[in-house]
Amino acid sequence: MIRVAVAGASGYMGAEVLRLLFAHPRVSVAAVTSERLQGQRLDTVYPHLRGLTELTLQELEPERLADAADLVFLALPHLESQRVVPVLRARGAKVIDLSADYRLRDAADYTTWYKSPHGDPAGLAEAVYGLPELHRKAIAGAALVASPGCYAAGAILATAPLLKSGLGRTDGIVVDGKSGLTGAGAQGRKTDPIYLYTEANENIQAYGLAGHRHTPEIEQELSLLAGQPVRVAFTPHLIPVNRGLLTTASVPLARPVPTGDLRQLYAEFYAGEPFVRLAREGEGSPTTRRVVGSNFCDLTVVADPRTQRAVCVSAIDNLGKGGSANGVQLLNVLWGWDERTGLAAPPVYP
Amino acid sequence: MIRVAVAGASGYMGAEVLRLLFAHPRVSVAAVTSERLQGQRLDTVYPHLRGLTELTLQELEPERLADAADLVFLALPHLESQRVVPVLRARGAKVIDLSADYRLRDAADYTTWYKSPHGDPAGLAEAVYGLPELHRKAIAGAALVASPGCYAAGAILATAPLLKSGLGRTDGIVVDGKSGLTGAGAQGRKTDPIYLYTEANENIQAYGLAGHRHTPEIEQELSLLAGQPVRVAFTPHLIPVNRGLLTTASVPLARPVPTGDLRQLYAEFYAGEPFVRLAREGEGSPTTRRVVGSNFCDLTVVADPRTQRAVCVSAIDNLGKGGSANGVQLLNVLWGWDERTGLAAPPVYP
Amino acid sequence: MIRVAVAGASGYMGAEVLRLLFAHPRVSVAAVTSERLQGQRLDTVYPHLRGLTELTLQELEPERLADAADLVFLALPHLESQRVVPVLRARGAKVIDLSADYRLRDAADYTTWYKSPHGDPAGLAEAVYGLPELHRKAIAGAALVASPGCYAAGAILATAPLLKSGLGRTDGIVVDGKSGLTGAGAQGRKTDPIYLYTEANENIQAYGLAGHRHTPEIEQELSLLAGQPVRVAFTPHLIPVNRGLLTTASVPLARPVPTGDLRQLYAEFYAGEPFVRLAREGEGSPTTRRVVGSNFCDLTVVADPRTQRAVCVSAIDNLGKGGSANGVQLLNVLWGWDERTGLAAPPVYP
Amino acid sequence: MIRVAVAGASGYMGAEVLRLLFAHPRVSVAAVTSERLQGQRLDTVYPHLRGLTELTLQELEPERLADAADLVFLALPHLESQRVVPVLRARGAKVIDLSADYRLRDAADYTTWYKSPHGDPAGLAEAVYGLPELHRKAIAGAALVASPGCYAAGAILATAPLLKSGLGRTDGIVVDGKSGLTGAGAQGRKTDPIYLYTEANENIQAYGLAGHRHTPEIEQELSLLAGQPVRVAFTPHLIPVNRGLLTTASVPLARPVPTGDLRQLYAEFYAGEPFVRLAREGEGSPTTRRVVGSNFCDLTVVADPRTQRAVCVSAIDNLGKGGSANGVQLLNVLWGWDERTGLAAPPVYP
Repeated sequence: MIRVAVAGASGYMGAEVLRLLFAHPRVSVAAVTSERLQGQRLDTVYPHLRGLTELTLQELEPERLADAADLVFLALPHLESQRVVPVLRARGAKVIDLSADYRLRDAADYTTWYKSPHGDPAGLAEAVYGLPELHRKAIAGAALVASPGCYAAGAILATAPLLKSGLGRTDGIVVDGKSGLTGAGAQGRKTDPIYLYTEANENIQAYGLAGHRHTPEIEQELSLLAGQPVRVAFTPHLIPVNRGLLTTASVPLARPVPTGDLRQLYAEFYAGEPFVRLAREGEGSPTTRRVVGSNFCDLTVVADPRTQRAVCVSAIDNLGKGGSANGVQLLNVLWGWDERTGLAAPPVYP
Repeated sequence: MIRVAVAGASGYMGAEVLRLLFAHPRVSVAAVTSERLQGQRLDTVYPHLRGLTELTLQELEPERLADAADLVFLALPHLESQRVVPVLRARGAKVIDLSADYRLRDAADYTTWYKSPHGDPAGLAEAVYGLPELHRKAIAGAALVASPGCYAAGAILATAPLLKSGLGRTDGIVVDGKSGLTGAGAQGRKTDPIYLYTEANENIQAYGLAGHRHTPEIEQELSLLAGQPVRVAFTPHLIPVNRGLLTTASVPLARPVPTGDLRQLYAEFYAGEPFVRLAREGEGSPTTRRVVGSNFCDLTVVADPRTQRAVCVSAIDNLGKGGSANGVQLLNVLWGWDERTGLAAPPVYP
Repeated sequence: MIRVAVAGASGYMGAEVLRLLFAHPRVSVAAVTSERLQGQRLDTVYPHLRGLTELTLQELEPERLADAADLVFLALPHLESQRVVPVLRARGAKVIDLSADYRLRDAADYTTWYKSPHGDPAGLAEAVYGLPELHRKAIAGAALVASPGCYAAGAILATAPLLKSGLGRTDGIVVDGKSGLTGAGAQGRKTDPIYLYTEANENIQAYGLAGHRHTPEIEQELSLLAGQPVRVAFTPHLIPVNRGLLTTASVPLARPVPTGDLRQLYAEFYAGEPFVRLAREGEGSPTTRRVVGSNFCDLTVVADPRTQRAVCVSAIDNLGKGGSANGVQLLNVLWGWDERTGLAAPPVYP
Repeated sequence: MIRVAVAGASGYMGAEVLRLLFAHPRVSVAAVTSERLQGQRLDTVYPHLRGLTELTLQELEPERLADAADLVFLALPHLESQRVVPVLRARGAKVIDLSADYRLRDAADYTTWYKSPHGDPAGLAEAVYGLPELHRKAIAGAALVASPGCYAAGAILATAPLLKSGLGRTDGIVVDGKSGLTGAGAQGRKTDPIYLYTEANENIQAYGLAGHRHTPEIEQELSLLAGQPVRVAFTPHLIPVNRGLLTTASVPLARPVPTGDLRQLYAEFYAGEPFVRLAREGEGSPTTRRVVGSNFCDLTVVADPRTQRAVCVSAIDNLGKGGSANGVQLLNVLWGWDERTGLAAPPVYP
C-alpha cells in the first residue's frame, strides 16, 4: 500500500481521481486538499462518496502533504501547481500533475501560450510528458510527470503512428476536438453562464478559435515523433454530455495508401498497449459512450483517396484517458505495477 | 471462484450485470446467451467490453447452462424466465431472476396483472423476493431469488419504515416514480418510437396510468410489513436520462410527528445496511446523480404537518439497486460473502 | 398597435415574453429594462435576437416605463414587483406581473409563505389571478393581473374540473410537478451549482419538500372552485430538459366513477378553451414535447378503481402556459382581442 | 393565398415545413401525404398539431397533388423524389425538393455518390440549387428547386466568401460537421439502434468517414464559386441534441491576412442577406442554441497566422436553414414575396 494525496480534490478531475483511487487495491488515500472547501468533509462536498470515506478537505500545505504521502496528485488550476511542486519534490514526494503547468518542454513556449513566465523552470526541465504510449520508459524513472491535456491526449493518440512513420505530412493537419462539459477542468464548479444547464443543453459550440492552449502540447509531441516541426490547426468544441471527448483529425498523406495499410500501421504502433483499442474492420468508428468511465482510447483510421488524407478518430473519456484515469495509469507505471491495476472495470455503458 | 452464466445478455440489464461480474473478484463468467444475437462475440454486440472478454453469445439451452454454471442470472423478457427456471432448478443451478416472473407470491395476482396464468407455480411458491433489506435471511437460504422491479425497489425502500412501524397509514399512499430510459428493461433495444432519441430527449412523460405492473409488487411487500392490505396509487414516468430512478412517495401519517422522529425511525430501520444512505440533516434531498453506476439507495424523509403526510424520496440507479447491482448483492448473500464484494466502486459522478 | 414594456428582460421569462411579443401583430415593444445589464443592447445579451431588435436595456424607472407603455410586463424577482406596481398603476399603465408578488389574495398567506409582509396590500386586493380558464371575465376588466406560477398553472388546470364538480375530494390530494431548468425563474442566470450543466444533466431531483411557494396558489384556486378549503401535498422536481413541466395529480374521488365520465367532465369544463387540449380516447398521456414553445396545456384524466382516485396529467411549457405565453394570452384578454393573437404558431416539435 | 402540398409529411423535415407553413400568412396547406401512415389524421401522427389542422394523410398520388396544389414540398427519402417530380412538373406544379435527388448538376456525380443512375436526367438539368444566398436570381425563375443538404448548407455558407474571393485555397480544405439527431432526415422515425435515446444520449460519434453524400454538394458549389475544382475533406458527426448543426471549416489561405480583413470580406459578401448574421468583433463564436427554430445562419471567421488558415464556424438549425425553413425561404423567392414572410419569429431560446 502506498500513500497518495490529492490536492485540488474539489474539482471534477480531483473527484475522478478519488473515485479511481478508492477502488485501487494497492493505494490508500492519505489526504485531500481544497482551498475553497477546506474543513468540510469530502462526502459533504461529494455526496456520491457517502459511506466510502471519512476524509476531510485540508488546506494545501505542501510540506505536510509531502510527509503524509508517497505520491501527490495535483488537480489544481494552472499556475498553482508550479508553486507547490518545488516543495513536494524537495521533500521527496513524487508528483503526478493533472494541470497544464509541466507539459511543455520549452519554457518559451509556456510563456507564449500562458502569457507569463514559468515559476519553476527546473521542474519543467525535469518533468516527463505523461503519455505512457509514447514515453513509458521515461515515466517509469521519473519523479514528476505531467499528465496530458484532454484534447492533447485525444489528438496525439489519434495521429501518432502517422507522424512517427512519415506517412503523415507535417503541415496541413487539422484537428477538431469535441468535449463534454466536465472538461471545464480542475475548477469544476465554474459559474460562467456558458456552463449553466440551460445554456449548454441542446447546444453545440466552438471556442478558443486558433488559440487553445492544448495546441502546443499536440505540436510538441507530434514534432518529437516526426523529427521535425509539426503545425496543427486545432479547434475545440463544447458538446452537451458530461463526459467524453471525440477527436477527428485530418492528416495529409505523403503518398497514396489504402486504409488497410493504415490499420496495419496503427496495429503495430499500439501492439501490447492495454488501453488502446483499434476498431476492427467493418466496425463503426469509435464513440465516446464505449469508453466513458474508463481509461480506454478507442481508435480508427480511414484513408480518403479523393483528398489524399487520413481521417483519424479517437474516443476517450476526458476525465479518463484525458485526465484522472491516465493519472492512475502513470501511478502504476511509476511503481512498476501492472498498468491495469485499479483500472480493470469496464466502461460504464449505457 | 464460482461459475456464473447470464441468460439474456444482450439487454441493458444483462449488460450491466456483466459489467459488474467482470469486476467481481470471486466470480467467473462461464456463459452468456442471447436468442437474437447468438453466435456473435459479446464484444461485437457491446464494444465497450472490447479487451475484457472473449465470450460468444450462445443459444439459450437451460440444460447446458445449468452444467456450465453454479448460478444463472436471468435477464430475459417476462414469460421466458418461467420456461427456463424449472430446468435450471432441476439440474441444481441457483437462479437470480432479474425479470418479473417470480416476484409475486400469489399466482392469482400474477394472472391479474400479467394477463396469463403462471407457467411454474411450484417455482413461484419457492421463490424469495430479492430485497436484502427486507428478506436477507430468506435469501441466504434460497435457490431461486426474484430481484425486484426497479420502481418497486425504489418505492419499497422509500416507505418501508413507515409501514412497518404503523406510523404510515395503509390507504391514501401515492407513489410517483421517474425513471431513465434504460428502464425499458431486459429487452433493451426496443424500437418503439417512444424510445428514439428525438422523441425522448427534452421530453417528460407519464405512462401506464393506473396500471403499471410494479404496483402489485409494491403492495405485496408493504402489506407484509404493515400486516394488513396496503393500496398504492402508482404512476411511472420516463425522464430523459440514461440511468437513474427517483421515487417520491406521499404517505399519510397515523398521527402528527416531526421530521426528526421520522429520520430516527429510518436510521434505526436501515442501521447496518451497506447500500442504504440516509440524507443527514440539512443536506438536500437525494439525487440520482449520486448513485448512478452503484448499488446505493439514497433516502430522505420529511414530515408535512399541513397535510399530515410524510414525503419520502429515494434515488437509485434503475440498473443498480433497481436491477443488476442488487442482483450481485443477492449473489453475495447467497454465497455468504461480504455484500459489498464486487460492489465497492463509488458511483460514477459526474 | 399598443405599446408594451418588459421589466426584467434579462431573465428567461423576460426573454420568452419578448420572443412572443416580437411576433405579435398588434403590439410594439417600447422599452426593456434590466438592473444588471442596463446600457447593453438587447441583442448582445440575447444574441438569438440579432437582426430582430435595436432596443437597449434601460434602468428600471417605473415613471418612465408608465409613460412609454400602455402595458408593462413584470418579469422581476419576487419582492421587486410590489415596489414597482404602485407607481405604474398610479400613472395609468396596466400591468401583467409574471412574478409571485400578486398571486395570493390573502395578505396573511403571503406573509406566511414569503416570510415578509406584502408591500402593496392595496394592489394585492385589486389584482386578479391570471388564469383565463378560471377568471376570464375578471381579467378582462382588470388593470393588474398576476400570471400564475408555473407549477400552479399545471396543477390547477389538471384538477380544476374535479374540484369544481365535487367529484374530487378536498383532502388527500397529492401533486407531483416536474419542471425543466428554465423554471429557475425570472433570475434566469443563477449560478448555484445545482444549475450547472454538469450537475443537472443526467440527474433527477426533488426539492422544496413540503414547502414550495406555489402550494398556496394551488390551494387558493382549488378552494375557490370547491367552495371549501382544499389541502394539497405538492412536491416539485428538477428534470434535465430546458423547457417543459409535467404535473401528475392524484385526487381521491368522492364516489366510484369510470374514466369515460371523467373525460366527459373535463370536456365540458374546458369546452371552447383555445389552449387546453384533452387527450382523445386511446391516445397516450400528455408529453411536454408536444407543447414546448406554445401556450397549450395538454391534459388527460384516468380513473383508478383500485384506489378510488383520479390520475390527472397535464403538460405545459413552463415558460409558455406556465409563464410568458399565458401572459400574452392575458394581454389579449385585456384588450379584447382573439386570445390566439400572436400565439398561433405550433409547438416546436421535435 | 397559394395552395401548398407536402409529400412525405411524416418525417421530421415534413413536420417542420408544416409547422412553418401553418404560420405562414400567404399559404394554405392543401394536402399532406405519407405512404406509411396514409388514412391517419395528421394530428394523430403529430399530436403537437392538435387544434391546428384537420388534415388527413393521403396516399402519394402525384397527379392529384399537382391538381390540389400550386407548389409541392417533397420531404421524401432520396430516390423517391425523382419518381414523383416528372409527373408534378408535367402537370404544372412547382416543386421544392427537400431530398437529395436534384442537388447535383452532373448526373455522373449522382451515379458515383448514390450508386445508381438518376431516373430523371431532364429534371436534374432543369433543377436549381436552392441556396438563395448564392442563386437567388436563378431560383426566382425556376420551377424545380433542390434545397441543400443540411451539412452542405452549413459548409457552403461558412466558406463561400473565401472561395469566391480567391483568398481561400482550393485544396487542403477540411470541414467538420456536427448535427443533432433530427438530421437523420426525411425518414425521421428510423429504428436503427444508433437512434435510440439510450445509445445516442451522452454520446459523441463520427460517421460516414470519407464518404458522406453531402460532400459532392459542397464541392460543386465551392467549385462554382472558385471557378476551379475544389476538394473538401468532410466528416459528419452525431451530437446529442435534437436540432442544430455546427460546421467548423478550416480553409488554407492564399496569403497572410488579418482577421479583420476576413470579417470585412464576409460582411460584404453577405450584405443585405436577411438570414445570415455575422458575429460582431469581440462576440463569441456562433452557437446552435441561438438559431434553433429559425432560418438564421450565424457565422464567424478567424485568421490563424500560425497555420495560415482561416477557421470558419457556422451555426444553423438542421431543420431550419439546413432544410425546411430554407424551403420556405425558397417559396418566398419563387413567389416574389419578402423572404422573411412566415419566417420572422425569433429563434426559440433557451
